[in-house]
Amino acid sequence: MKTSFGPKTLLYPTPVLAVGTYDANGKPNVMTASWGGICCSQPPCMNISLRKATYSYQNIVDRKAFTLSLPSEEQVRQADFFGLASGRDTDKFAASGLTAVRSDLVDAPYVAEFPLILECKLVHTAELGLHTQFVGEVLDVKIDASVLDPEGNVDIRKLKPILFATGSKEYYGVGKFLAKAFSVGKES
Amino acid sequence: MKTSFGPKTLLYPTPVLAVGTYDANGKPNVMTASWGGICCSQPPCMNISLRKATYSYQNIVDRKAFTLSLPSEEQVRQADFFGLASGRDTDKFAASGLTAVRSDLVDAPYVAEFPLILECKLVHTAELGLHTQFVGEVLDVKIDASVLDPEGNVDIRKLKPILFATGSKEYYGVGKFLAKAFSVGKES
Repeated sequence: MKTSFGPKTLLYPTPVLAVGTYDANGKPNVMTASWGGICCSQPPCMNISLRKATYSYQNIVDRKAFTLSLPSEEQVRQADFFGLASGRDTDKFAASGLTAVRSDLVDAPYVAEFPLILECKLVHTAELGLHTQFVGEVLDVKIDASVLDPEGNVDIRKLKPILFATGSKEYYGVGKFLAKAFSVGKES
Repeated sequence: MKTSFGPKTLLYPTPVLAVGTYDANGKPNVMTASWGGICCSQPPCMNISLRKATYSYQNIVDRKAFTLSLPSEEQVRQADFFGLASGRDTDKFAASGLTAVRSDLVDAPYVAEFPLILECKLVHTAELGLHTQFVGEVLDVKIDASVLDPEGNVDIRKLKPILFATGSKEYYGVGKFLAKAFSVGKES
């Protein structure tokens, strides 16, 4: 039996993405967002939605670029901090002790200590309401050797990405392996 | 030390979303997609990207509506099947034994047995390349009583949503609780 909850943003899971940008003075900023993901395979594109009130919003409009840095489980405290403080009055890199590295492909910085980085060039903007959706074409993905398997592919057990649970506003880790995709359904 | 992987769709986690639509003859269809998520809080909006080659693509263009049904771990086989078969030559509801229910708010069906449903009215379309991104305003969320906690909120431990790992193409469950969001970062 299903109950109506009305129009709500309940979807599981959402990712935890640290959005890296430069402000008008070239100061690096980073904010955490979970309204985002993959939106195109060719060219590879990522979407991220920000409120206009955020400091990062104008940075993306001006610089036409952003990065997404994915934190690992042990970085959950810093990732949450990046969503609480504002770049208007805080140097979040200095405050967290993490390192801003300038992307050599797009006009934006990323978080050196986070294990997976997507460098994105702004290609599409949609005004949806409280949030503006930015779509960025991925020009490069940079990954720490420490989260790769022996074949050189990402091992999700080593990456340990964080999931954000909407509604309860909680962070979770990745759990048990369930099945191979494009495979288990063939038994249907 | 980071290695460049070039432009790729590597982001963790992505959700597993069964997209429900009606075709030109009113036959219900459902396909699984992971390029999607939340993109606006007010009005609540979800985005989902589909290739033009999919049967569901034209259905959304014509009907200006879709639903997202979130499967639970024990439904991983059906969810994967929905991504393997095509509505062009298969009645995926009949083949899977699952039930198509007509939304009373939008012109699209949802999967009765899946625990969380989002009913979406198309409000924005973006041609991004291989994928077209559809943004739908959420008119209602319907949730099974069985996945709610005693206070009537979604319990992610009962919902057991599926995560899709890009790259390795694997499904995982939700793992351990890490921290409260908008909270643990205050200790920074």
